[in-house]
Amino acid sequence: MTRGLWVTFEGGDGTGKTTQATRLETWLREQGRTVVRTREPGGTEVGVLIRDIVLHHRGEVSPRAEALLYAADRAQHVATLVRPALARGEVVIQDRYFDSSVAYQGAGRVLDAEQVRDLSMWATEGALPDLTVLLDLDPATARRRLDAADKPFDRLEAEKSEFHERVRSAFLALAAADPARFLVLDAALPADELAVAVRARLHHVLS
Amino acid sequence: MTRGLWVTFEGGDGTGKTTQATRLETWLREQGRTVVRTREPGGTEVGVLIRDIVLHHRGEVSPRAEALLYAADRAQHVATLVRPALARGEVVIQDRYFDSSVAYQGAGRVLDAEQVRDLSMWATEGALPDLTVLLDLDPATARRRLDAADKPFDRLEAEKSEFHERVRSAFLALAAADPARFLVLDAALPADELAVAVRARLHHVLS
Repeated sequence: MTRGLWVTFEGGDGTGKTTQATRLETWLREQGRTVVRTREPGGTEVGVLIRDIVLHHRGEVSPRAEALLYAADRAQHVATLVRPALARGEVVIQDRYFDSSVAYQGAGRVLDAEQVRDLSMWATEGALPDLTVLLDLDPATARRRLDAADKPFDRLEAEKSEFHERVRSAFLALAAADPARFLVLDAALPADELAVAVRARLHHVLS
Repeated sequence: MTRGLWVTFEGGDGTGKTTQATRLETWLREQGRTVVRTREPGGTEVGVLIRDIVLHHRGEVSPRAEALLYAADRAQHVATLVRPALARGEVVIQDRYFDSSVAYQGAGRVLDAEQVRDLSMWATEGALPDLTVLLDLDPATARRRLDAADKPFDRLEAEKSEFHERVRSAFLALAAADPARFLVLDAALPADELAVAVRARLHHVLS
């Protein structure tokens, strides 16, 4: 008897979220599970349009407009993709969820973290993942990884390094406040070791 | 000594908001005022992108995503266009504001009207117009006007007539709850008479 399972990956850019999500996806498929791989923002058709506004608009986007756009993307994503997949008993592996909004918008910008969280909870009617993997890495190392990858930076990636320090602290604070949901990993470790740690925790969540 | 002035027009489609907004704009310009004519959704560059999603997306948009998109448009509009114009002492004449969200989203759909209002108030940091003109008309008459205009319907216009009855009732309830801000007019009256009534009330607001 299988049940739906929802795993989110969090952390700054360059911490290896995509690599670990792919490892987990491969492993779960080998176990015969149906996996939906998705992300926020941009996990739905509407979300792709929203993501484009938030990450690539050249003019000013006001802080509250930005927070509301992320929440709209989230509402659409959870209502039309995540909840239906979980109801079918599938596994949803997701790159970023509301913890990113709280960390980036709340702690990093001018908005109150509690309000940003409330907004996400209203958007999703309080939907929480079974497991959230936080890949923790100092911003300087993450920066070097991104430079090596040599891809263009979006609006958030281009923010100053002190901003990324605040985001990292915010992520760690969120994890500390909810240890039952979070698994915090040192993203400087080899990818193989991290993948093993994720699987071990998932085994625990499933049993 | 002039001060900024903010007038919003509300009511269903086909009630003559554009006509009355244009009359007021012309009259105020004749008085030497600088007028910013705008609308929601779509009063800013970001808003045009959002409006396109809300009104013209072909797939499902979840009720909460829709409410959050309208709120995002509103946040951007008030922060980057309305407040700066009012601070310069200009007049802002606006087609639709948060009363429309409360009437359409809250009363017309599945969401709680109070929550939709709270969302707008958070988006705009509580910004309220000096005057809101509600053009009230029975939906059947409004429908005939729209049919005569022979333009294609967007998603909201195509909703059933009982929906438009609920929206009309919601607008009237909002006006009854805040008579100091609202002017309710019978939109079946001739446009000239309506324009005179708006000017008379504005004279009262300004003095």
